[in-house]
Amino acid sequence: MCFPLLPVSFFQHTRCPVLYFVQLLYFRHRCESVTAAAYPHHLPLQRGVHLFPFSSFLLPALEPSPSLPPTVSISYIPGRRPTKTMGLSNRNLLLISSSMVHGYGYLDHAADELKAILHSAVAKRVLFVPYALRDHEGYAEKVRAPLKQLGFEVESIHNASDPVAAVKDAEAIFIGGGNTFRLLKTLYDMELIEPIHCRALQDGVPYIGSSAGTNVATVNICTTNDMPIIYPPSFAALNLVPFNINPHYVDPDVKSTHKGETREERLRQYHEEPGTPPVLGLREGAMLRVQGDRAEIRGVASARLFRPNKDAEEYTPGSDVSFLLN
Amino acid sequence: MCFPLLPVSFFQHTRCPVLYFVQLLYFRHRCESVTAAAYPHHLPLQRGVHLFPFSSFLLPALEPSPSLPPTVSISYIPGRRPTKTMGLSNRNLLLISSSMVHGYGYLDHAADELKAILHSAVAKRVLFVPYALRDHEGYAEKVRAPLKQLGFEVESIHNASDPVAAVKDAEAIFIGGGNTFRLLKTLYDMELIEPIHCRALQDGVPYIGSSAGTNVATVNICTTNDMPIIYPPSFAALNLVPFNINPHYVDPDVKSTHKGETREERLRQYHEEPGTPPVLGLREGAMLRVQGDRAEIRGVASARLFRPNKDAEEYTPGSDVSFLLN
Repeated sequence: MCFPLLPVSFFQHTRCPVLYFVQLLYFRHRCESVTAAAYPHHLPLQRGVHLFPFSSFLLPALEPSPSLPPTVSISYIPGRRPTKTMGLSNRNLLLISSSMVHGYGYLDHAADELKAILHSAVAKRVLFVPYALRDHEGYAEKVRAPLKQLGFEVESIHNASDPVAAVKDAEAIFIGGGNTFRLLKTLYDMELIEPIHCRALQDGVPYIGSSAGTNVATVNICTTNDMPIIYPPSFAALNLVPFNINPHYVDPDVKSTHKGETREERLRQYHEEPGTPPVLGLREGAMLRVQGDRAEIRGVASARLFRPNKDAEEYTPGSDVSFLLN
Repeated sequence: MCFPLLPVSFFQHTRCPVLYFVQLLYFRHRCESVTAAAYPHHLPLQRGVHLFPFSSFLLPALEPSPSLPPTVSISYIPGRRPTKTMGLSNRNLLLISSSMVHGYGYLDHAADELKAILHSAVAKRVLFVPYALRDHEGYAEKVRAPLKQLGFEVESIHNASDPVAAVKDAEAIFIGGGNTFRLLKTLYDMELIEPIHCRALQDGVPYIGSSAGTNVATVNICTTNDMPIIYPPSFAALNLVPFNINPHYVDPDVKSTHKGETREERLRQYHEEPGTPPVLGLREGAMLRVQGDRAEIRGVASARLFRPNKDAEEYTPGSDVSFLLN
C-alpha cells in the first residue's frame, strides 16, 4: 500500500524541528533504511530553512542498522507527503543506458527486453513521458514507431488533460532521455514524482527508463552526465532503486589529450561525499532489469560498479546484481 | 560602492509579493539591466515559496530597455541582501579554461597572463580558494609551486580563521577548478558570494578563475561540465560577467561511436530555455581577460561563442569580445 504519512510540508511551514524529528525517528524505528535521499547532503531542505543545521547535526545518528526488519522503504519527497511502500515484490523495471547504440537502430538493442517487460504485465499501451526534450510531440513520434513495430501503442503524457490521472491509469510508463534537470524539474512542477513512484513500486506497473529516464528512476540525479540548464527544487528523484546509475558510462580514452575529468574521476568525486550509495555505470547497450528483489544486467554491453573506497567491478550481461537492492 | 539594499530574505520570510516587486521595480528603474540571475528560470526562489508563480508572470515585463543609463549592475543573491555596484571600470579578471593543458606544465600556459594581472594590481599575495576539491591542503600546495616560481605567495582560504575577512583583505583571489557544485555550495555555506563579488567588481581586486573557478565567476553554473554531486542552494553564481562560460570546451569527435550528447548539443539545450545569455566555450588553453569594460580572448587556443538562435562563432586569441559585457 502506498499512503501518505505525516505531511513534511506542514513541518517545513511551521519550521518545528521537534515535530520533524518525531517523524524521522518514527521512520528510523520502523524501517531498515531511510534512503539516501534523506541523508544530510541530499536533504532537500534549503539553506535558510531553520531545520537544516539541526538535521545536519542529528541525521548521522539515524543511519540504518542491519538488525531492523527489511520490510519498509521510505521515499522522502521534498515539500510533499512522504510515501511508504510495504514490500517491493511488484517492482518491474527496465533501466536502459541509452536509446541509441552504435550499430543499432533506435531502441533496437532493447527490443527483446521491451517486449518481455510489457508482456509480463499484459500491457498494450505505454504512457510516454517526453519532458526531457523540448519538442514533446516530435519526441513522442520518434518513440511511437519502434514500439508500434513491437505491437504496443504509445500515448504521450503531454497530450493528457490530467497528467496525474494519466499516470494513475497507465498500463506501463516509459520516461525517455534528454536533459535530466529539465526532466526532473518538470516532474516536480507537474507533481508527478509521487504518483509515478507509487505506480511503479506499489502497483508493479512496468517502468521503462532510458538515459535521463534511468537517472530519475534512482535515488537522485547526482550522477547524470547532463548540463544543469535549469534548477530543480531538489536532486532527489523517483527512488525506485536505492542506488545511483550513470547512463552512457564510458571508459577513459587513453589516447585523449583532453584534460577534463574522466567519467570515473567524476564518479569518484561523488563518492567523496559522505553517505553516497553505489553507482552502477551502464555502458551504452547495457541495461538493468529489476523484478521484485532481483536485479540483473542485460543487453549488449557490460556494466561497471563503483562503490566508495572500493575498486570498480565489472558485470557482464546476465550478471545477478540483486545485492544492490539491499 | 557596494552596499546592501532592501533585504530580500525579509520579503521571502513575509512572502509578500508586493514588497518584493517594489524592490524589483526599483531596480528596473535605476538600472540598465537586472542580471540574468534574476530572470524567471534562474530565480533562486523555490517551488512552494509563494512568490514564484507571481514573479514568473511579471518578470518578463522587467526586461531591460536600451534607453536606461548603464550605471548600475545588480547581483541578486538568494536569501541574502542584494548588492549594487556603481561602475565596473575596476573589474580585473582572468578566466582560464583549465589549469592543465596538453603539452604544458601545470598553469604554465597561463604564466604570462597570471604575471600581468597580478602586476597590474601590484599584488604579491594571492588568496587561493581550494573548495572545488576535497583535499584543500594538497590542492593549495599544488598551486603554490608554480605561483612561487612567478614570484607570488599563496595563502589558502581554508587556513584562514575568518574566511570572509580573508577575502576582504585579499590582494588577489584565485579560485581553482574541481567540482563546480561542491565549490558553489561551499561558497554559499561560508557566505563568501557577496564578499568576493564586491571585492572583484567594486575594489578591482584581481580575480583569477580556472575551470570551476571560471564557471562560478559568471552569472550561474548552468554550463558547467561537472557532475551534480551535491545540491547547492541556487545555480546563481558570482556574476562578475553577464554571460556564461563553458570551460574545457571540446569540439565533437567525428570518429566517436558514443551516443551521449556532444558539448555543442548540451549548450544548445541550455539555449532552448528562455532568457539565457550567450555562452563562451573556452577550449583548453584559452582564457578570457576582462579589464573594466574590455574583454579579450587570450592564451594558446581559441574560443567558440554560442548564442540562442544563431550560428556559433570562432574567436582566436587576441579577439576583442567586449560586446559580451553589454
